[in-house]
Amino acid sequence: MSKNSRRRRRRRWIRRQTAPGASPGTLAPDPEASKPVVRVLSYGADDFEEREVADLSTLRGLVGKRPVTWVHVQGLGDGAAIAALGELFGLHKLALEDVVNVHQRPKVEQYGETLFIVTRVPSRREETDTEQVALFLGGGFVVSFEERPPEVFAPVRERIRARRGRIRFEEADYLAYALLDAAVDGFFPVLERLGEQLEELEELVVGRPSPATVSRIQACKHDLLMLRRAIWPQREALAVLFRDPSPLVRPETRVYLRDCYDHTIQIMDLLETYREIGSGLMDVYLSSVSNRMNEVMKVLTIIATIFMPLSFLASLYGMNFQTDKSPWNMPELAWRYGYPFALGLMALSSLGMLLYFWRKGWLTNGSRRRSEGEP
Amino acid sequence: MSKNSRRRRRRRWIRRQTAPGASPGTLAPDPEASKPVVRVLSYGADDFEEREVADLSTLRGLVGKRPVTWVHVQGLGDGAAIAALGELFGLHKLALEDVVNVHQRPKVEQYGETLFIVTRVPSRREETDTEQVALFLGGGFVVSFEERPPEVFAPVRERIRARRGRIRFEEADYLAYALLDAAVDGFFPVLERLGEQLEELEELVVGRPSPATVSRIQACKHDLLMLRRAIWPQREALAVLFRDPSPLVRPETRVYLRDCYDHTIQIMDLLETYREIGSGLMDVYLSSVSNRMNEVMKVLTIIATIFMPLSFLASLYGMNFQTDKSPWNMPELAWRYGYPFALGLMALSSLGMLLYFWRKGWLTNGSRRRSEGEP
Amino acid sequence: MSKNSRRRRRRRWIRRQTAPGASPGTLAPDPEASKPVVRVLSYGADDFEEREVADLSTLRGLVGKRPVTWVHVQGLGDGAAIAALGELFGLHKLALEDVVNVHQRPKVEQYGETLFIVTRVPSRREETDTEQVALFLGGGFVVSFEERPPEVFAPVRERIRARRGRIRFEEADYLAYALLDAAVDGFFPVLERLGEQLEELEELVVGRPSPATVSRIQACKHDLLMLRRAIWPQREALAVLFRDPSPLVRPETRVYLRDCYDHTIQIMDLLETYREIGSGLMDVYLSSVSNRMNEVMKVLTIIATIFMPLSFLASLYGMNFQTDKSPWNMPELAWRYGYPFALGLMALSSLGMLLYFWRKGWLTNGSRRRSEGEP
Amino acid sequence: MSKNSRRRRRRRWIRRQTAPGASPGTLAPDPEASKPVVRVLSYGADDFEEREVADLSTLRGLVGKRPVTWVHVQGLGDGAAIAALGELFGLHKLALEDVVNVHQRPKVEQYGETLFIVTRVPSRREETDTEQVALFLGGGFVVSFEERPPEVFAPVRERIRARRGRIRFEEADYLAYALLDAAVDGFFPVLERLGEQLEELEELVVGRPSPATVSRIQACKHDLLMLRRAIWPQREALAVLFRDPSPLVRPETRVYLRDCYDHTIQIMDLLETYREIGSGLMDVYLSSVSNRMNEVMKVLTIIATIFMPLSFLASLYGMNFQTDKSPWNMPELAWRYGYPFALGLMALSSLGMLLYFWRKGWLTNGSRRRSEGEP
Amino acid sequence: MSKNSRRRRRRRWIRRQTAPGASPGTLAPDPEASKPVVRVLSYGADDFEEREVADLSTLRGLVGKRPVTWVHVQGLGDGAAIAALGELFGLHKLALEDVVNVHQRPKVEQYGETLFIVTRVPSRREETDTEQVALFLGGGFVVSFEERPPEVFAPVRERIRARRGRIRFEEADYLAYALLDAAVDGFFPVLERLGEQLEELEELVVGRPSPATVSRIQACKHDLLMLRRAIWPQREALAVLFRDPSPLVRPETRVYLRDCYDHTIQIMDLLETYREIGSGLMDVYLSSVSNRMNEVMKVLTIIATIFMPLSFLASLYGMNFQTDKSPWNMPELAWRYGYPFALGLMALSSLGMLLYFWRKGWLTNGSRRRSEGEP
Repeated sequence: MSKNSRRRRRRRWIRRQTAPGASPGTLAPDPEASKPVVRVLSYGADDFEEREVADLSTLRGLVGKRPVTWVHVQGLGDGAAIAALGELFGLHKLALEDVVNVHQRPKVEQYGETLFIVTRVPSRREETDTEQVALFLGGGFVVSFEERPPEVFAPVRERIRARRGRIRFEEADYLAYALLDAAVDGFFPVLERLGEQLEELEELVVGRPSPATVSRIQACKHDLLMLRRAIWPQREALAVLFRDPSPLVRPETRVYLRDCYDHTIQIMDLLETYREIGSGLMDVYLSSVSNRMNEVMKVLTIIATIFMPLSFLASLYGMNFQTDKSPWNMPELAWRYGYPFALGLMALSSLGMLLYFWRKGWLTNGSRRRSEGEP
Repeated sequence: MSKNSRRRRRRRWIRRQTAPGASPGTLAPDPEASKPVVRVLSYGADDFEEREVADLSTLRGLVGKRPVTWVHVQGLGDGAAIAALGELFGLHKLALEDVVNVHQRPKVEQYGETLFIVTRVPSRREETDTEQVALFLGGGFVVSFEERPPEVFAPVRERIRARRGRIRFEEADYLAYALLDAAVDGFFPVLERLGEQLEELEELVVGRPSPATVSRIQACKHDLLMLRRAIWPQREALAVLFRDPSPLVRPETRVYLRDCYDHTIQIMDLLETYREIGSGLMDVYLSSVSNRMNEVMKVLTIIATIFMPLSFLASLYGMNFQTDKSPWNMPELAWRYGYPFALGLMALSSLGMLLYFWRKGWLTNGSRRRSEGEP
Repeated sequence: MSKNSRRRRRRRWIRRQTAPGASPGTLAPDPEASKPVVRVLSYGADDFEEREVADLSTLRGLVGKRPVTWVHVQGLGDGAAIAALGELFGLHKLALEDVVNVHQRPKVEQYGETLFIVTRVPSRREETDTEQVALFLGGGFVVSFEERPPEVFAPVRERIRARRGRIRFEEADYLAYALLDAAVDGFFPVLERLGEQLEELEELVVGRPSPATVSRIQACKHDLLMLRRAIWPQREALAVLFRDPSPLVRPETRVYLRDCYDHTIQIMDLLETYREIGSGLMDVYLSSVSNRMNEVMKVLTIIATIFMPLSFLASLYGMNFQTDKSPWNMPELAWRYGYPFALGLMALSSLGMLLYFWRKGWLTNGSRRRSEGEP
Repeated sequence: MSKNSRRRRRRRWIRRQTAPGASPGTLAPDPEASKPVVRVLSYGADDFEEREVADLSTLRGLVGKRPVTWVHVQGLGDGAAIAALGELFGLHKLALEDVVNVHQRPKVEQYGETLFIVTRVPSRREETDTEQVALFLGGGFVVSFEERPPEVFAPVRERIRARRGRIRFEEADYLAYALLDAAVDGFFPVLERLGEQLEELEELVVGRPSPATVSRIQACKHDLLMLRRAIWPQREALAVLFRDPSPLVRPETRVYLRDCYDHTIQIMDLLETYREIGSGLMDVYLSSVSNRMNEVMKVLTIIATIFMPLSFLASLYGMNFQTDKSPWNMPELAWRYGYPFALGLMALSSLGMLLYFWRKGWLTNGSRRRSEGEP
Repeated sequence: MSKNSRRRRRRRWIRRQTAPGASPGTLAPDPEASKPVVRVLSYGADDFEEREVADLSTLRGLVGKRPVTWVHVQGLGDGAAIAALGELFGLHKLALEDVVNVHQRPKVEQYGETLFIVTRVPSRREETDTEQVALFLGGGFVVSFEERPPEVFAPVRERIRARRGRIRFEEADYLAYALLDAAVDGFFPVLERLGEQLEELEELVVGRPSPATVSRIQACKHDLLMLRRAIWPQREALAVLFRDPSPLVRPETRVYLRDCYDHTIQIMDLLETYREIGSGLMDVYLSSVSNRMNEVMKVLTIIATIFMPLSFLASLYGMNFQTDKSPWNMPELAWRYGYPFALGLMALSSLGMLLYFWRKGWLTNGSRRRSEGEP
């Protein structure tokens, strides 16, 4: 993930379309958002009708015709169209404002006789970013909004068309559940990829730690933080849905919502485990770096302590005391075996030092290969 | 933000105007506070009247004339005037004391038939500092107090004047909501700026870490701490407002307050994310610094290990053993190719060392540019 | 535990058999899972009958014949057989899906008139990994599922056969308790082994810290994290079982479930203690490493500071100032005791340095043996 | 604060006067505690009577004479006198035991028809230590105990005498509130001083970090810990007082207690902020120290890398190869510009190194002054 | 505390006497446990009878004879005797199992008409280890079990004999309280010793930090962890006792239990404070170590930077350029004051370096004594 995309994302998260102090319920969509495409799917146990509507007035005829009407809006770039849709289904202005401001936390809110559900799905454009999906669940209808293609809910649509499972025999609340379930399950592949990344980093951090590894660990932790921020309130929202009494959600459906809630708990669980592993990686990195520093220091120390006495001895016999002025002035220089004697002295000092280091364990421990294979 | 301003702020936060043991309800405004300017805005669906009142007795005629009366006091420097206002609207002495002591945490308190609401807004003088705004919500009136100009609530005033949105058709509780909403939304720009600062620091910390970076990270974390301290109780206060039953707040308005509460949760969420990013930055900084130290150590070690043997060899052949006294005394000195032999020995030792370092990976890893571009 | 096994485990944890958006209740067992073996044990106070059934239709005759029927399924590789079993006992499809997806968190869920209980037991193949065991408790029957042999519940089966304890005189809820108790108690040996590992690491970290020690500490913390993730929800599930009113669990049995719940608390307690010890180990490791670095630095410094002045003095008297040109040019060279004087100067400088270090405490503290035995 | 005083304080905190296993309710005052001085203040709206009583039997006549009787005991050195007082007002033995054991946590306890309140005030002898103050609130009377002079409640006494505020017109519960309020407000000056200390440390830690700074940071954190330990339960105790129904505390007074509770929350808030700042200081200190180490390392490396090649070159031309034996043996020695050539070589190597360091940014970053003023 | 004792303790904590899957309620005492000694004390306000019973059947005559019967069992090595006692008093099998498995967490459990209380007391054999004490409180009797002598409850027994305090006039619940109180108060001396240890470590860590100090800090933190694990559930158990309604505990006794609960809170409070101090010690240790490393580095750098130029200059004038071949070849060697000139150059370079270091503040800060006394 590039720096720029991260920046763009953060901006989007914060920037509100409406200015502080503006009247609440103002629909000010992001000017860059794409124009909405509205698809209606009206179905019952026996038949179904699917249509892409350009003119919202044609929608009026479809609503209520069969047990469930599902209106799916893709693209949030047209405030007027969304307002019109809101009026048709009696959706609250504050909820529609939240639909358009795509930086909401997942939540469930009761507005009169409709339930407003905000959820987030992993973005298909940038891994670990999330996009907002909003649902309205009313008597006999579900209205869903997503920011841009490709459609998140394609598998559910396919199940309705193919009459797979129980979905064609159930009511609108089951459709809402199916959509939420598809949204939640979309996080599993993202987590799998993050898990693989962490494993790769685990190996890097022990084998070849570099400053780039730190950046990658941080990026990974950052992504986990972002995901957690999206999943945590999702969990709460689902708990509200399956626990709080609402005439819109039948007891039969609550069992399914509990199952979906269970999935969010599993995701949270994994996220927390990954976060702990990520923190552990930083520890290992730091200990790995300080270990390398230690090794470097040891090499320096060994070299320095071996050559310093050698150099000193060499310099010693390079002194110019005049041997002819006094028999005390470096008589070694004139010895027959003076030079071999000096070389021997040097060899002895080196060996002594090496022995000292060997006994301190610096020579054996210094080789990484051996210590790694130790246990 | 300078040291001085931070110090000033902290002082202001702590210092209570009243001495320990003083009688409760004593109105002792900060002697440096500016004199109050009182503006009244009385409005209904059809008409409105706006006036700046110098004499508080003229206020009496305006209260209750139209559905909503909004008295806004700017500047808290006159204890007597505030007490008079309190008497006019039946405000509790303890609450008025809190109005004047501008270091309160946001809170909601029921005093008889009025609700007393303290909230904080980002200061317009110093970023990330906050100022206190206090509201009284009673039957048909709102009395609001702020420390100094410019007015926080100007956009709301403008909406009333221009009859934009629903505000002119609603009661006093909606006005209170509109004011709180304006206060909360004022934090978004501050957060956006902090987000940009963190991004900048993120780049600095990897590219050019310096002790000054640490100071800036700390300052940033400090500001986040301050904001969190202002927002956290705000969230609680709003939760109390929209959940607890109070005859002063109608159910229709509770929906709006819930929306406002939602915004504080979003702000908290961002703050927590920023705080985690800030903590991560310190980690990266420390690993960055220890990496640089590692690099410095490597350079030192490489230079030292290359030149120590060289110097030793040079010193060795600088010894003064008398070659004429014995054929064992450094015969190399008299060889025809003695000097080239010595130079060759040196070159060999250097190359050997370089080979050793190269195989240890010290030479390649040592260059920051390459390792950064690694993944 | 090898890297590969850890990776395999993590994969298994995440990968769902069903695709996102699939119809709920789809039974898609892991293709690698072994075929199920079904054992039935029907017993009362007086007699019992045990049988391995290949054809599920023969089961129908056994159910309800005696007070308790226990059907135990080993291996989850046949979705159709499990579905048939579900139909026979009236088990919910969503629950059966969870039986097959063996990555569930421990939980208790009420589905109509059966209780669905998921628990985890330590894996017999890989220490510190866990396997899923699922139970259905209904009126007069328990259906249990486990992933693969060897059977977890062998001791309970033995107790029924041998008519040991109260089990033959109790109802199905007591059997469910006995199975859960066996599952929970299975964690104690794993914990004992982890405790021994931590002790061993504690000694390693003080005596011979190496990068491999860090890897082992991290692996240990990782395992504790995994266990905690399995035990924590187990605790909650048991609390639900013994506290929530359910006609399936008699008050007499609740006392036993409370005892079992107590055991999970004890396990959690130990896990938390181990986790704190594990974190402490990292601290000790880091301080141990930085201590060694310190020691290395001291040796380097001591050697360098002793030999640098020596080398300097030797070089000094190696200068070629022409003593014959001036009496000021190194008259020492011609002294009678010039060389001994120079050697004495060197000895003095060395002694001075050693004295300085001795007084700084570097020489005494540098020896590990002494400081370790200090207190 | 000296080591000794800290030790003394800790001892006092732990040591219980009564031995383990002793009969509860035993009054065993600290033998070093000063003898009690008892002052009675009996007042109503119209008149008041103040007296220091030596003989407790004279007290009996005063109690109940006017609406409120306030008995204040200074010094806890006489167990018999305290027991007599307890009998006079019907105080429970266990509560009196707590009065004498001055290491209680703040708490509120109902004993029959009296409320027993323990609170702590900042010690006037040693900053950041706290002393215990105990109150009994009964119908029409308050009995208060403090360890030693100077009196904490002097301002309240003054207010009663001077008939300032509402205190003379209120009942005993208001007096209890006034005393608690005075106790809580006494923490603000202590916090202000700690805040200034932290600021000072903040500057020290960046500018001149030394081991002494760490000790001071730790002492500061220690003091914050101590204060927190005193304030945290105070908050709870006050919450109990203003929330729990008790016939002794009238609703009018609860509003005032809520205000007092608010002050403890403000104090807690500040303490938490200070604690976070304190933790941040340790981080800055460590990064500051490692930065200095880095700088030291750089200087060493620069000096070493510049002089090592120089020394090598000088040693090289100090070798004694006999130029007269072979034209290959160091012909440079006989060149006309041999010496300047060698010096030039040295200058070149130095400049090369400096250029290398300059390009690595070591020379510019090394100066603290520049980098600090960077942003 | 030695390594071995710690290991033994941990083993004991984990190892369950009963195998996983064993029938619940199996009494399998530790084979190393000592044989039980049973003492009965039957008392009322007027008289008491104390006896050591060898044959449990003689017990039957004593029970119920006077208001309170206290059976105290020391040593848990005889499963049959304990089972017989259980039958006599109607104690539940599961509870008796917990009596024998001496690794229980403190807890209170209602079994029919008896309360089963497990508590832990500091071990008299090994400081900071704890032993289990179990109590059964029934109508008119208390049965208590402890692992081994010396008796924990000796002071309570003494109070009954001597008719000190209220104990002889109260019922069985007061006896249970008295025993619990004695158990809890036993922790205060242990805490006092730990507090002194921490103080000692605090001084060591600043003055003479060594790896052994880290081990001691860790051991201390370990002990605090162990104590916390024993006290934390004790607190909960006591809260249950004094809050939950149970006919066995009279309201008068609840006041005393609340007092006892208060003591556990005080202990927890101290433990938490100690734990924070312990964590702070690790911080101080690390900063102390890194400070020393800094100091070592400075000494090395100062020595190296002073002697490197000196050595270079000495080597320079040791070069063998032939002065007779060219006037450019080291004419200094033939100068009259050549040698003093060279020495002067050396002195200048040294002084320059020292000046540089002095201005950098390295020379003054380097001395530990001064910087410690700084503030």
